[in-house]
Amino acid sequence: MQQIPTIDNVTEARERLKGYAFVTPLLESPALNARVKGRVLIKAECLQRTGSFKFRGAWNCISRLTQGTAKGGVVAYSSGNHAQGVAAAAALMKLPALIVMPADTPDIKKANTRAYGAEVVTYDRERESREEIASRIAEERGAVIVPPFEHPQIIAGQGTAGLELVEQAQERGATLDAVLVPASGGGLAAGIALAVKAKSPATTIHCVEPEGFDDHARSLISGRRERNDRASGSICDALLSPMPGELTFSINKSHLTSGLVVSEAEVKRAMAFAFQHLKIVIEPGGAVGLAALLAGRIAAEGRSIAVIASGGNVDPAFYADVLTGR
Amino acid sequence: MQQIPTIDNVTEARERLKGYAFVTPLLESPALNARVKGRVLIKAECLQRTGSFKFRGAWNCISRLTQGTAKGGVVAYSSGNHAQGVAAAAALMKLPALIVMPADTPDIKKANTRAYGAEVVTYDRERESREEIASRIAEERGAVIVPPFEHPQIIAGQGTAGLELVEQAQERGATLDAVLVPASGGGLAAGIALAVKAKSPATTIHCVEPEGFDDHARSLISGRRERNDRASGSICDALLSPMPGELTFSINKSHLTSGLVVSEAEVKRAMAFAFQHLKIVIEPGGAVGLAALLAGRIAAEGRSIAVIASGGNVDPAFYADVLTGR
Repeated sequence: MQQIPTIDNVTEARERLKGYAFVTPLLESPALNARVKGRVLIKAECLQRTGSFKFRGAWNCISRLTQGTAKGGVVAYSSGNHAQGVAAAAALMKLPALIVMPADTPDIKKANTRAYGAEVVTYDRERESREEIASRIAEERGAVIVPPFEHPQIIAGQGTAGLELVEQAQERGATLDAVLVPASGGGLAAGIALAVKAKSPATTIHCVEPEGFDDHARSLISGRRERNDRASGSICDALLSPMPGELTFSINKSHLTSGLVVSEAEVKRAMAFAFQHLKIVIEPGGAVGLAALLAGRIAAEGRSIAVIASGGNVDPAFYADVLTGR
Repeated sequence: MQQIPTIDNVTEARERLKGYAFVTPLLESPALNARVKGRVLIKAECLQRTGSFKFRGAWNCISRLTQGTAKGGVVAYSSGNHAQGVAAAAALMKLPALIVMPADTPDIKKANTRAYGAEVVTYDRERESREEIASRIAEERGAVIVPPFEHPQIIAGQGTAGLELVEQAQERGATLDAVLVPASGGGLAAGIALAVKAKSPATTIHCVEPEGFDDHARSLISGRRERNDRASGSICDALLSPMPGELTFSINKSHLTSGLVVSEAEVKRAMAFAFQHLKIVIEPGGAVGLAALLAGRIAAEGRSIAVIASGGNVDPAFYADVLTGR
């Protein structure tokens, strides 16, 4: 296993991200506060460069590479958001990027990845191994693999969202009782846990997953990495990793209090709520935290809860269906 | 005519708004910058309390009232966004609010206004005078009228968005060449003009209107207040005032460089662009600035342009149609 990142790596990552990643706003909605009878702070990572938090980790990793150390560029495998983060970071570093993406990835994620100048190779989520395809291509090209979560620099980069969150909450006079963070491979949760537990130890951290893909929730209970039965078939296309990462779970198992699980109907309601009351576009995987809150999966009355809205890359036709209840 | 507000009124309004209105984020999109070959900064007033900039002026006005000076509460006439701003501000002051709204206002605006606890009375935009209806009700109730734009405190309140804009742009190292601001009665444009011209005199300010409702554009050319032929029939429901206000135009005629005009198709494309690349929900009237920029109505290459995205209160069914091109 690789070295476990620390809060120092997160702090260092923040310096590296300055001027490249955005400090995303912490949004608040009186309507949402009234509804849960508490105070809710939304960390709007959908407003991050490339439309999700993934640029943070990608930049923290790729900005250290040079034409010398990565003469064949970078290769990544991703369901879409990491793809865009890697493609944008590589473009800024003038390195070629090739991304291995599932064939059923939303078109907007494929199109945006290509728009950043990356080459896209698709694979079958159920039958092929993206890691094997990426390894083979990286070897052929002399390229560096940028994994989506199992990497200390990736985790530390994602953690910068947690540092910002704690500081922005303090500026608003809020002491965070809990943080809700979507989990797929667990990189965002691990990074945010490192940051939040270092700066606000009493805050509890809860990952959130869609039904059928609740590997983290079950792993946190059993204490070992549990696997999902399925590898596809959720509207939360960003949250389909088969199991927690080894590195990420080594952090999450001790830093996370629990895992919450939401239904697809709850996710859609959260997306529509964000449209109506927050005026931000959240993709299904990015809306699970808000969905858990609105569904009452965590006590909010009289408390301050932060929700990470992790991404906003959703196809317009699907979003239209969510808004109109089709 | 009432007293013309100054930059001092805007600065004072900012103190009054602290802790009540949000400092909305200034968003930037590498995709948008690349597209116009310049630097674009989006002041996301759709993320303001009540989903539009209107809370600023409403709070600046209504927070000065007391149960003694406004024993019958407040009355306003509004196409929807001012309604919500007034309703939310009155609720915070524990004053009753009645809003006179056009019958064809989007449902989301009526529903949200009622959700803030206000009473809603509708009228026919083509045949009735909202000012007369509001005056009669205010007299009957002993209520204070909070006009949508013809009031120095309203203009000064809206101007706080301009103060924030200039400071946020400076923090980003951007010197603003131009600001694009939607215009209906001209209150937002006047407030922003006061703030921007005081803090960044070389910046040019341009109002933006939909085709058929270009009263400001024509008035800026003729030097006198011109009237629109129509009072309804645009998707930009927030931008249908019949002519510039007397007070607002006394500021705008000397502070604005020109008025830009956009088509409905251009507005829809801008809304869809904001969905895809900015991940914010912008209503038609709030998207005219971005529409003008994307349509090339102002030179952007090598320049820094600020766009005020003034509101995000749009019915989900209409928004779905815009996204899917129906």
